[in-house]
Amino acid sequence: MDLVVVGTIGIDDVETPFGKARDVLGGSSIYAAYAASFFAEVGISSIVGQDFPEDFMHLLKRRGIKTTGIQVDGKTFRWKGRYEYTMNEAQTIDTQLNCLASFKADLPEDYRKVKYVFIGNTDPEIQLGVLAQLKKPSFVAMDTMNFWITSKKDKVLEAARKCNLLIINDGEARQLFQTASLFEASQRARKAGIRELIIKKGEHGALLFSNGRFFYAPGYPLESIKDPTGCGDSFAGGLMGYIAKTKDKTEENLRRAVIYGSVIASFNAEDFSLERMKRLSMQEIESRFNEFKEIVKF
Amino acid sequence: MDLVVVGTIGIDDVETPFGKARDVLGGSSIYAAYAASFFAEVGISSIVGQDFPEDFMHLLKRRGIKTTGIQVDGKTFRWKGRYEYTMNEAQTIDTQLNCLASFKADLPEDYRKVKYVFIGNTDPEIQLGVLAQLKKPSFVAMDTMNFWITSKKDKVLEAARKCNLLIINDGEARQLFQTASLFEASQRARKAGIRELIIKKGEHGALLFSNGRFFYAPGYPLESIKDPTGCGDSFAGGLMGYIAKTKDKTEENLRRAVIYGSVIASFNAEDFSLERMKRLSMQEIESRFNEFKEIVKF
Repeated sequence: MDLVVVGTIGIDDVETPFGKARDVLGGSSIYAAYAASFFAEVGISSIVGQDFPEDFMHLLKRRGIKTTGIQVDGKTFRWKGRYEYTMNEAQTIDTQLNCLASFKADLPEDYRKVKYVFIGNTDPEIQLGVLAQLKKPSFVAMDTMNFWITSKKDKVLEAARKCNLLIINDGEARQLFQTASLFEASQRARKAGIRELIIKKGEHGALLFSNGRFFYAPGYPLESIKDPTGCGDSFAGGLMGYIAKTKDKTEENLRRAVIYGSVIASFNAEDFSLERMKRLSMQEIESRFNEFKEIVKF
Repeated sequence: MDLVVVGTIGIDDVETPFGKARDVLGGSSIYAAYAASFFAEVGISSIVGQDFPEDFMHLLKRRGIKTTGIQVDGKTFRWKGRYEYTMNEAQTIDTQLNCLASFKADLPEDYRKVKYVFIGNTDPEIQLGVLAQLKKPSFVAMDTMNFWITSKKDKVLEAARKCNLLIINDGEARQLFQTASLFEASQRARKAGIRELIIKKGEHGALLFSNGRFFYAPGYPLESIKDPTGCGDSFAGGLMGYIAKTKDKTEENLRRAVIYGSVIASFNAEDFSLERMKRLSMQEIESRFNEFKEIVKF
């Protein structure tokens, strides 16, 4: 196993101006692990309920994704969301935490030895717990969200300092570092002891701050966007999968990893749930990677 | 004279979270012409009132900007605006059109022979009038805004078809081509007979659609933004100045022109009115041009 992904598994209902999907597989660890599986062998640490469909579990296993770190208890987490025409941000219509409320992320023994780890958005105390279990971490990334920045900011920063990379969106960066300027946010992150920072800007691409330098990954001009659910997680998963595969933490390789993450996320938006990733080939990934090169060339 | 810039001249009051400026020189033709003057010899076609300060006129003349196309009549156009913390869009507090209401853009004889022309945002019938006066246009770009798209959409499209390049922001593109997708907007622009299209995305950079291909110019991660007034116009002016200087309309050169426009616009935001451009050197421009290369390199 090259990479461990810690995060949620859910059953989602999603509505966008271009259609709807009911009772589909979702959750941060699912999108991240599936995206990473294009590059590396992945194991998920998460929790589902006894009601979790066998089909979903088979889908992961067929894909070669390790599921021994998925606990089973109670009822599966459910999320219902809707996107408006601009597709920028989901409106949550309903959340049922269910089993997720008791998730502690106790990693199986073989997970603890894995060098590459992505800790999806969750309580920073759980994230710190995961970090404490890792025996030889080489490159660990984490995500967070406004809820934790508001309620447990110190813990968020403590966890981020122990990671190699913090991946957040622009709104979260502004909130966490209390500035409207993403440049200023990057400087404050550095002062706070955060090593590498990625700021996701949705359709506008992503910024990597590494070694005091900036890298701007463009937003891919998508012909059709059906459902942006999971784009942030498939971005992070694709990125971490590529790093786990190449075992290369140089700034140069991080830049390539950001592009691979962007490529996978751009495909993910083309259909609901995992549908587009399920029929995605490495050839398509490489071809869009090259398109990203063309798009910024001058 | 290499380039003619048609647009407004105004006296502005601007307030941002980082300061305020009173009775400063502004207007689309001012920002565009000043930006273009780094690369080419520029003439302005515009109108001011009898109250227009001598100092402002001297500033343009000292810079080598031709002012024979500036009519004088009545009172100068005034604009008062404010930016909130996000700096995305100005809130207009007050507009006094004054002499601008009678502006017709009658070009002096020597202006009519100029090959490179930027027609700033104004009534599309005036824009069509400018196009009709040009004797040997080689590359003409125009801007527009939501007001004209709502009230005179057919005329906007007619003028845009007669230009080589339409430069608008993302909201205007969505409105003009009635789609949320900028990809789709670019396809519809092509079908509508528009040759080249640039979509400005503010801090998120700019997209060029040329020959059916996309180019993504990144937003420059600015350390300090004081006042974004005139950024769109200095972007267009820098871009057109560079094209007029190089006399090269290939896609490759358009891409470079978009970056030069982005460079000048990024500097423009660093201070109020023309202050930053007034103390800007070609060395700084070239240095930031190279930074743009580094920022997207992978």
